[in-house]
Amino acid sequence: MPRADKIWTAGLIVIGDEILSGRTQDANTAYLAKWLNVEGIVLAGVEIVPDEMGRIAAAVNRARDAYDYVFTTGGIGPTHDDITVDAVADALGRPVVVHPEARDMLQRYYGDALNEARLRMARVPEGAELMPNPVSGAPGIKVDGTMFLMAGVPKITQGMLAGLSGQLEGGRPVVDRTIGAWTGETAVADALLRVEREKPGVQIGSYPFWRDGRVGCNFVIRARDEAVLADAAQRLSRALREAGAEPINGGI
Amino acid sequence: MPRADKIWTAGLIVIGDEILSGRTQDANTAYLAKWLNVEGIVLAGVEIVPDEMGRIAAAVNRARDAYDYVFTTGGIGPTHDDITVDAVADALGRPVVVHPEARDMLQRYYGDALNEARLRMARVPEGAELMPNPVSGAPGIKVDGTMFLMAGVPKITQGMLAGLSGQLEGGRPVVDRTIGAWTGETAVADALLRVEREKPGVQIGSYPFWRDGRVGCNFVIRARDEAVLADAAQRLSRALREAGAEPINGGI
Repeated sequence: MPRADKIWTAGLIVIGDEILSGRTQDANTAYLAKWLNVEGIVLAGVEIVPDEMGRIAAAVNRARDAYDYVFTTGGIGPTHDDITVDAVADALGRPVVVHPEARDMLQRYYGDALNEARLRMARVPEGAELMPNPVSGAPGIKVDGTMFLMAGVPKITQGMLAGLSGQLEGGRPVVDRTIGAWTGETAVADALLRVEREKPGVQIGSYPFWRDGRVGCNFVIRARDEAVLADAAQRLSRALREAGAEPINGGI
Repeated sequence: MPRADKIWTAGLIVIGDEILSGRTQDANTAYLAKWLNVEGIVLAGVEIVPDEMGRIAAAVNRARDAYDYVFTTGGIGPTHDDITVDAVADALGRPVVVHPEARDMLQRYYGDALNEARLRMARVPEGAELMPNPVSGAPGIKVDGTMFLMAGVPKITQGMLAGLSGQLEGGRPVVDRTIGAWTGETAVADALLRVEREKPGVQIGSYPFWRDGRVGCNFVIRARDEAVLADAAQRLSRALREAGAEPINGGI
């Protein structure tokens, strides 16, 4: 039974020089954020750190202190720069051990070709479990039921999250609605603030865009209750019209 | 004259609930990373934080302690959730003031329609300068020559960076080369490690992909010297062939 009053939070640590060099565009943050939202958990912070033991361990410990859940992406493969398991074990003050079930899986998959590099993928922080992955088969690593070490490759990350769906304690999912209007932000800033003050617990974000030489804005209203959301949307629509903004159906 | 021995670093703070909710995919990290690389500066860490004063200020102070330069994106517009200027001023222990040049720009642009919300965009931490933006005209905010507060909308962020090109002290740009091969990571992990050990200062990242039912891998070699890079690339190609990997010209 979810406790409706508690806001459950998660932090994400994105591990990888390829993101910080600009070579790869991180896609896991947005995906995890939406997945968490369905589970009733708020993604409350993200750190992107290089493939360095000390940096990863520090970020892990900061996130453990700050959030209910900690997710990591990247650095759990077989190569020398895959050091997430070691860094997390270090942060937790635990040894790294070979997980027997993971070793069996690798043994079945590789047979005689199971080498030392491949065996690296069976290493976990002591006490950890595997996260089943119904999509690609490659498991992630779950520690203490609150930390989740996942792959960096989005397709595999998404499989690991699919296997975790419905298993975490969370609160009420956030519901949102987008209202678009042809207007600059500056013309309606007061209206946004007024509606937000009238409706405690409701957040309104404004995201400008330019199209066909005109300026428009999408206003995203977020709440934890459908009725509250609907009322806030109605108030905002009215306030926008009063401020002279021309509505666009459903936003852009 | 760049000091070739010093590695110049930057941190980025991405500010915005829209990124953490998964609604918007951050595009500024990858762009800034590549821009910094040309300037001879390494993007060494990124934090994504919500639109909260305390969280932004804490991230700013962490980044100031850790890196040579600090960049922020988001939260410098006219609406109530645009609090980056206030949070940075708070982190620096300085008041927020109206920048006379910015006020003049807004006055010319809006004329009689200059309202309180629009005037918010002329507010800066005391002592700050404007960052000219040759692309869209909207200036960013430069503090002490080391902190750069930029817009969240990528087109505008990129304009602000264009205006800053060539103005920061940096070291040697990182050069890189990608070698692709049809092979799994696990088959060549030892080869990668060996080449990295043979060539101090060279980093090799491996990024697997799946195509047409085959597994391949791109190996990205990074160095600060063309000759060192070329030698490392040659060694890696040889090591990959010895490990039985089938080369793909120029990577995928």
